[in-house]
Amino acid sequence: MNREQLVTHIREKKSFLCVGLDTDIKKIPQHLLEESDPIFAFNKGIIDATAPYCVAFKPNLAFYECLGVRGLSAFERTVKYIKKFYPQHFIIADAKRGDIGNTSSMYARTFFEEYDIDSLTVAPYMGEDSVRPFLEYEGKWVILLALTSNKGSQDFQLTTDAEGQRLFEKVLLKSQSWAGPDQMMYVVGATQGAMFADIRRLAPTHFLLVPGVGAQGGSLQEVCRYGMISDCGLLVNSSRGIIYASQGEDFAEAAAASASKIQCEMAAELKKIGF
Amino acid sequence: MNREQLVTHIREKKSFLCVGLDTDIKKIPQHLLEESDPIFAFNKGIIDATAPYCVAFKPNLAFYECLGVRGLSAFERTVKYIKKFYPQHFIIADAKRGDIGNTSSMYARTFFEEYDIDSLTVAPYMGEDSVRPFLEYEGKWVILLALTSNKGSQDFQLTTDAEGQRLFEKVLLKSQSWAGPDQMMYVVGATQGAMFADIRRLAPTHFLLVPGVGAQGGSLQEVCRYGMISDCGLLVNSSRGIIYASQGEDFAEAAAASASKIQCEMAAELKKIGF
Repeated sequence: MNREQLVTHIREKKSFLCVGLDTDIKKIPQHLLEESDPIFAFNKGIIDATAPYCVAFKPNLAFYECLGVRGLSAFERTVKYIKKFYPQHFIIADAKRGDIGNTSSMYARTFFEEYDIDSLTVAPYMGEDSVRPFLEYEGKWVILLALTSNKGSQDFQLTTDAEGQRLFEKVLLKSQSWAGPDQMMYVVGATQGAMFADIRRLAPTHFLLVPGVGAQGGSLQEVCRYGMISDCGLLVNSSRGIIYASQGEDFAEAAAASASKIQCEMAAELKKIGF
Repeated sequence: MNREQLVTHIREKKSFLCVGLDTDIKKIPQHLLEESDPIFAFNKGIIDATAPYCVAFKPNLAFYECLGVRGLSAFERTVKYIKKFYPQHFIIADAKRGDIGNTSSMYARTFFEEYDIDSLTVAPYMGEDSVRPFLEYEGKWVILLALTSNKGSQDFQLTTDAEGQRLFEKVLLKSQSWAGPDQMMYVVGATQGAMFADIRRLAPTHFLLVPGVGAQGGSLQEVCRYGMISDCGLLVNSSRGIIYASQGEDFAEAAAASASKIQCEMAAELKKIGF
């Protein structure tokens, strides 16, 4: 999917919501456990209910891998389901991969060829040659970790070098020589608030994938104030706040209500910039 | 597995070799493709042939994930096979994971509970709370990326802060407040040569997992000169140089010969320190 298609979808839906499919078998409604594939049954319910309010889905690989073959199979079915019934939706495999070249190539093959997913989150620690294999696919995106939403983001990402440049700033700058804003996005946690202004100085035109609204406490308004650009430039993710809005039989309706509420707030933010 | 057990095994084998199971379906001998599970058949051949010369096996998850359910199943069978027939061997899941707390907890559950693997490679970019969930398992190890073997290691890992400390040094120092040398190791690429002396000043007693000997060009002698400590403190990995020593029907014998050659060199190095 290219940037124009993504932006068109955002315009149509008046939403830049990404629904995080962090599906935990221990948290899904009891009645689904009778299904042959409870994880997929849950995802299908969530996807159908929230698709009208969002433009992207982000399955988090950890939640599928922990179930072994059964989990991976549910992941595959989920991706295929989205691609078949909601082809406009951007799919992000949240995997935070990154390894030496030949290994990253294998991961790229997996996510971009086998699963034909639109994008993958990648960790920058190992540098250019660990990221480059993911950039060899047209219409596919790398979403590089820059400034994450967790407390540990302070441990290394904020380290300042001799010239006063912080590590996440170095990641933003250096990686722009690897690929442009039509192929790369950055992860910036919603909990980082005013740091978005610093990010936008260095990456004025890139899309940012923003986790941390909802359960992690980030503010949508603050993210938009500092991070939104003329074609939106944001994908804001919510996982737990939507998919576990209810853990009863009404889980899908509750997820839809939660997603719809966020979409309304997003429409208001988009209106502010006349989008 | 605890440190004493690992060191005892190194002493018995006069080896600190780790065989990397980077098994690529496109590179295994033709005749194995007729097997019902070619990846496992290949791994079984390699494991049986090289176990006398090594103390650890390191399957690289990327190579299994790229085959989807079939690959994951081969990974599971491989781990079970090692645990059953070679319980003394240390198993490293080379996955380079690292994510926010609840996600890292899922990965920890997967690798340490489901698969009961001894250790996992983890990327440090997201800081303490992304690593901590892996440290909650007794007898299990985190192997944290410090200074990797690839060219891209120069992009961020060597960034120097205002006090002259490089990022990999910060990772070494800060992470020592999270866990001691009985629960944490560091990845240091063999291609880093004399940098091992710097590493040993900061981490004098930790085991180092050293990839990059063989196909990537690192020198075993140099690694030992600067990196070896009184209880060895090294696990040196070779993947391609061993497992693809021959791509014919004699792949297992060729792998054994290649592993045996490295083991001889290792025995000589251990002798130098009177181990």
